[in-house]
Parts: sequence; structure tokens; C-alpha cells
Amino acid sequence: MRMFDRLSSRGYHVQDILVMRWDQFELDDEMPFQAMWYTVPPGSQSPPDQHPEPELSLVISGTAHVDAGGTVTEVPPGCAFLLDSQEGHVVANRSTDTPLTIFSAFWMPAGDRRG
Amino acid sequence: MRMFDRLSSRGYHVQDILVMRWDQFELDDEMPFQAMWYTVPPGSQSPPDQHPEPELSLVISGTAHVDAGGTVTEVPPGCAFLLDSQEGHVVANRSTDTPLTIFSAFWMPAGDRRG
Repeated sequence: MRMFDRLSSRGYHVQDILVMRWDQFELDDEMPFQAMWYTVPPGSQSPPDQHPEPELSLVISGTAHVDAGGTVTEVPPGCAFLLDSQEGHVVANRSTDTPLTIFSAFWMPAGDRRG
Repeated sequence: MRMFDRLSSRGYHVQDILVMRWDQFELDDEMPFQAMWYTVPPGSQSPPDQHPEPELSLVISGTAHVDAGGTVTEVPPGCAFLLDSQEGHVVANRSTDTPLTIFSAFWMPAGDRRG
């Protein structure tokens, strides 16, 4: 069993978003997806993003407001959201005091998957 | 975008563990893994489990004490643990008052994967 400790993991900033990619754990192809944690500070939001990989996100703490194609969905802690391939999205933290932390798994669509 | 709300999802009990399998969302092969949430009440633990699928677990709330092969690892909220194929495990909640909720993703090992 291996434990992945978010608090001691390496991260970097994209604007004021702290991103911790799981590449650092060198799991190579052990998992059929890539993964990251990211934290959006209170009152901030992720830059607009769009990519070929479908992405499953789990809200660990805080509450997300996810804008996908102009529709905003509130996602409370413990809940999840799935973005389709190429679906544009912005993840906002409307709280004034609670950071929003998310775990995301993403993978290439079936037709493009290696192997 | 689809939202998966843990609080309104269907679950069933294995002993006193509440299990909410993602089969109910009928995602079929959209994700390269299967998934579930489960909640271990204070003072309880999961039945011993062992299966061919590697399993990645994320602690959503509470703290897990995971016994894998006789070694117990504490996994705080927001952190994760990865169990290998066929690695026996018991997930305990040693808290007296806080439920332990986990999100798990699991998949067949590469050699056994369909397609």
C-alpha cells in the first residue's frame, strides 16, 4: 500500500491556484488515469480550461461553482463532477474564507488511448 | 457536465458500512475505472477485503487507519492510498464521533483489461 500525502506533496502555482500533480509519485502506467489535487483560494477561480481528456473531479473541501458552457453548477464537498472531452470549464470558489480543494482524474478518450 | 451528488445517491449496507456504487450513474465505459463512495461509522471498520482490481482511495472526510498486510497507515482527509492487486486490506475509523467517507476508484489490471 502506498499513501499519498497532500500536505507534503510538491506543488506549483497557476495564477493563485496551487496545483499538485501526481506525476511526482512516478506511478507511470499503474493507474488508467492521471491525477492532481488543486486548491482555489476564496474569491478566486481557475483560468478557463478545455482539453481532450474527460475529467472527473471530486470536491474534497469547500464548495465549487463550475461554469461549463455558461451553466453554473454548485458542487458541495464530497460530491463530484464529470467534464466531457473538450468541454470548456471554469471552477470558482465563491467562499470568502474557505479554500476549495479538488481531486481530479483525467484520461485520454477511449479511441485515443494507448495500448 | 454531470454532477454526482453523494447525498442523494442510492446506497446499501455491508454490515454497518454504507456503500454507494457509481454503477447507478450508468456511465458504462465512459471512465476507465469503476467507482464508489463508502462511509465507515465511528468505531467501525470494513470487513477484510481482497480483490484483483488495484484500488485508489481518497479520504473525503474523517481519518482512515488502513491495515494492509499487518501494517497500519493513518490517512488524513484529503490524502489518498493505493492498494495493489490482491493486497488484503481493512479500513478502520478510530474516531468516536466523526464518520469516515472515502471515494474509491478501481479497475482491472492492465493485462486483464478489456479492449
